[in-house]
Amino acid sequence: MVRVDVYPTVINIPETADLAGRTAVVIDVLRATTTITTALANGADTVVPVLTPEEAFQIVRKNPERRFVLGGERKAVLIPGFDLGNSPLEYTPSRVGSLPVLFTTTNGTRAIRRAAGADRVYIASFLNAPAVAEALLREGRDVAICCAGSHDQFTLEDAACAGAILDFMNGPNVLVKTNDMGLVVRELYRRFEGRLSDLLHLAEHGQLLVKLGMQKDLAFCAQLGTTTLIPQYREGQVVLPEPA
Amino acid sequence: MVRVDVYPTVINIPETADLAGRTAVVIDVLRATTTITTALANGADTVVPVLTPEEAFQIVRKNPERRFVLGGERKAVLIPGFDLGNSPLEYTPSRVGSLPVLFTTTNGTRAIRRAAGADRVYIASFLNAPAVAEALLREGRDVAICCAGSHDQFTLEDAACAGAILDFMNGPNVLVKTNDMGLVVRELYRRFEGRLSDLLHLAEHGQLLVKLGMQKDLAFCAQLGTTTLIPQYREGQVVLPEPA
Repeated sequence: MVRVDVYPTVINIPETADLAGRTAVVIDVLRATTTITTALANGADTVVPVLTPEEAFQIVRKNPERRFVLGGERKAVLIPGFDLGNSPLEYTPSRVGSLPVLFTTTNGTRAIRRAAGADRVYIASFLNAPAVAEALLREGRDVAICCAGSHDQFTLEDAACAGAILDFMNGPNVLVKTNDMGLVVRELYRRFEGRLSDLLHLAEHGQLLVKLGMQKDLAFCAQLGTTTLIPQYREGQVVLPEPA
Repeated sequence: MVRVDVYPTVINIPETADLAGRTAVVIDVLRATTTITTALANGADTVVPVLTPEEAFQIVRKNPERRFVLGGERKAVLIPGFDLGNSPLEYTPSRVGSLPVLFTTTNGTRAIRRAAGADRVYIASFLNAPAVAEALLREGRDVAICCAGSHDQFTLEDAACAGAILDFMNGPNVLVKTNDMGLVVRELYRRFEGRLSDLLHLAEHGQLLVKLGMQKDLAFCAQLGTTTLIPQYREGQVVLPEPA
């Protein structure tokens, strides 16, 4: 039996002590965790989640001999002085290859930092949801699925991705026990299976991105299972672990 | 157009400033708001939500000339020195008639206190959900539906009750705009329409109550639209307003 609890927003993520012994899965579909995964898949050396733009500038100043890519957003748009915004489409091999990315977003990076007390912290999005489910089943630890949400509110897209992971964990020889939130998000995912782009367009944050002209991001973030890579947060950085 | 936002747990309820101008609807189906409504329907003079048992004992000590009923729970069971637990079935006319009830529960009373910054604060449960929806539509103010949840986690029963209110607000001449949480809870309610007792038995807190031998409470709390009374929290007390 695997216990999988789903938490809807950053402030609902349990304290560190309650995460010990569990694997945390952090989800911010629009767009932080989709973008982090894309950056690493496209060759970024590492992604360092920082809470503020100032924290990124400090790291740059303290390491004058190193090259960094500064990426992220505030209110969904590029931060002054930064190289890239929060669109996964910007994180191409030519822009991020072999470089460390200092990354700050409103909700996703907070969620990663808050989940850091878990034994392992996986970064998930629709892109790698099937692979994440498979890894969780293989490992058999209890799981805390930590949706970033938006400004401490529930979001449709993070919930549906949590539901996708739960749904992919289903199988004839598996007993997955979940909490009330898990029951609801699994049902939500099933209702939108095969129509994830519709779901992202229905979501409040999806609608904001469309208004800002970023509808291409929605199409990208709605892709299911395009990679088997599972970024992992370890000692302050998100990296791709060596294959076991 | 009426804007109705749904908040899944106490800590997701916005700050007072964000509630100004709105009507808050506080929901704790199992069992605080069901019990408060029942107590008032059965003739209690007022229900005073207090955060701790100590707060209740203090009020009693400071008012030696008055009679009070002390009610509530910690971990779903009776508090030592209290008269009643948190079962609506205990709040009969002979026990609460004409008396003020000092009431403390783990989640519901916290939610009421936190929602107090709204222009009006309604107390809702399945018992009065249709009446609450009608009142909200008539008044036309923006609405904050504040689910208590359980220990800052989402609960199926509060979410479904929020969904019921949203669903009852639907109509041919009404445009209700809701947030992502609202979309999900409305769908949840529709899926369990006519089967609310099943939903309460599926809910984690419902299962705990069954384990504790309180299955009759689930049947009671699952009743839909048995009253048109809408208790209101005003200046530290929950009362039944005079009919307009």
